[in-house]
Amino acid sequence: MKAYKPKNRLSAQEYINGILNGDRVILSRAITIIESSLESDKKLAKKIIQGILPASGKSLRIGITGVPGVGKSTFIEAFGKFLIKNGHRVAILSIDPSSQRSKGSILGDKTRMEELSGMDEAYIRPSASGETLGGVANKTAESMLLCEAAGYDIILIETVGVGQSETAVHGMTDFFLLLMLAGAGDELQGIKKGIMEMADMVVINKADGDNIKQSDRARIQYQNALHLFPPAASGWTPVVTKASALKGMGIETIWEEILKFKKQVTESGYFEKNRNHQKLRWMYDNINEDLKQLFYGNPEISAQLIQLKKEVLDSHISPVEAAQLILNSFKKSL
Amino acid sequence: MKAYKPKNRLSAQEYINGILNGDRVILSRAITIIESSLESDKKLAKKIIQGILPASGKSLRIGITGVPGVGKSTFIEAFGKFLIKNGHRVAILSIDPSSQRSKGSILGDKTRMEELSGMDEAYIRPSASGETLGGVANKTAESMLLCEAAGYDIILIETVGVGQSETAVHGMTDFFLLLMLAGAGDELQGIKKGIMEMADMVVINKADGDNIKQSDRARIQYQNALHLFPPAASGWTPVVTKASALKGMGIETIWEEILKFKKQVTESGYFEKNRNHQKLRWMYDNINEDLKQLFYGNPEISAQLIQLKKEVLDSHISPVEAAQLILNSFKKSL
Repeated sequence: MKAYKPKNRLSAQEYINGILNGDRVILSRAITIIESSLESDKKLAKKIIQGILPASGKSLRIGITGVPGVGKSTFIEAFGKFLIKNGHRVAILSIDPSSQRSKGSILGDKTRMEELSGMDEAYIRPSASGETLGGVANKTAESMLLCEAAGYDIILIETVGVGQSETAVHGMTDFFLLLMLAGAGDELQGIKKGIMEMADMVVINKADGDNIKQSDRARIQYQNALHLFPPAASGWTPVVTKASALKGMGIETIWEEILKFKKQVTESGYFEKNRNHQKLRWMYDNINEDLKQLFYGNPEISAQLIQLKKEVLDSHISPVEAAQLILNSFKKSL
Repeated sequence: MKAYKPKNRLSAQEYINGILNGDRVILSRAITIIESSLESDKKLAKKIIQGILPASGKSLRIGITGVPGVGKSTFIEAFGKFLIKNGHRVAILSIDPSSQRSKGSILGDKTRMEELSGMDEAYIRPSASGETLGGVANKTAESMLLCEAAGYDIILIETVGVGQSETAVHGMTDFFLLLMLAGAGDELQGIKKGIMEMADMVVINKADGDNIKQSDRARIQYQNALHLFPPAASGWTPVVTKASALKGMGIETIWEEILKFKKQVTESGYFEKNRNHQKLRWMYDNINEDLKQLFYGNPEISAQLIQLKKEVLDSHISPVEAAQLILNSFKKSL
């Protein structure tokens, strides 16, 4: 039996050339191949990535997060348009492991960024679908490299502030922006612990109309709070600012602060150091994930694990002893 | 050649009986066996743990952290004495992977807790030494089980607030207490990101003399800051309080809050749920650590890894591809 092979595929070199020439249609088709789970596509994807790799990396990568309702799409629309007006080419990707392509992911509905999606200098791609965060994150990071090779010099990676995907986005971007709303603290319910500490910037969004006073108060509160926290490895002190994406207010200040950040970390050497660290971290995450898959995907191991978990919970066996037993089984099974 | 076997060892059952009878000398000797790296001792340790396991778990486990200079020893001395006066038996352990037994670890110098160390109801044990945090944490957690079986109903696990050992302590305790000083924020330099978010309670220590006003201000600042942060899985809102361990002030309030916490999480079911989660986490951490050891400890793998890291950093190969290559080598080597 011959494996199914889609017909309309180009050669790896044709994809590579198309991407390097900034051909949006080829770029989209190449990302589809990266997202594909077909074996033949996986081989093709490897070659494409290998080919564009030397041309990747020359962008500023910005992660943007915030709970649903915070106005992320409106913010990205306003921010993206501002960047394009200032001569940039902007690619917008997203990580949302819960999304199903068929159900439409966060950015699937391009009408939410109506103007931006019509611009030549903007490239919008919805989240890859997939079962595991690791898999989705891999595909997004690879798509990012393709966008960079296609000449997009600003990459915005969006995620929803409710899960571990923030850590993934933080691990592949240079700057991490958290969108929040002013309010009685209720809006925090959706933000997971630790996300605030990753932020290089907190933007109080929807700071307009009746909301202005409250937003000022929130800005000061967050600024004070962040000062109480330990400094980041980058040496950058997180900035709290307010914006009204709807009215296009505050966007310029945000960009100025990001440029200040970029200048500071480039001069200090942190920018490159962090990029290198991220590359290796990406490799190690894949190794460790595959290693776990090799272990936990073993049917004998998973059967024994069910039994051992029960015994550990019942204090019949110590967790350390249980781990040793199952590791010994694994070694024997090899 | 016969393996070296220390002479003065009792039988596993003798250790178990001694521990269950609350014999401090036997308890100490058993912990020494747990900390030993001799193969014969490791086997003996397994039997001892197996024997005392059903009698373990009946304590309140409190993690205590703070940078050097914050007054940890003085605080533990005051807190321990208070607990004993209230009818408790207190065991004090510590995790400090950097400590070398020969150099004396944080708690090695018992004179720092002079009164407490002389009391029958207190048991003080310095940090195990070891190369890896995982190894040291394992030994401390096992020692904790022995102390519980010996009748200590409060376990204090101390660590220095400068590394990953806080995560280990947080993962094996019911309540996590962070000691801080009032000040201009400089004292935060030593506290790593993320530690603040783990705290169930922040105690502003040395709130005495000229420091009282500043401590009040710090207390309010931290209280406000913590309110801005997402709620913990326990449902508990972190408390900020002040104390002068030196003058014995504030200790009673701290204990009342801890009891409030215990009542709340016991009634909500979180206490048991968290204990179960910790047991399984402990097992999984050991499995994953051993698995990594199996992989990265392989000489061929580590040689290939050096080469691949270079190629990843030079963008000659993608991190995902590098991970796949090395995993394939590993599978072939099995």
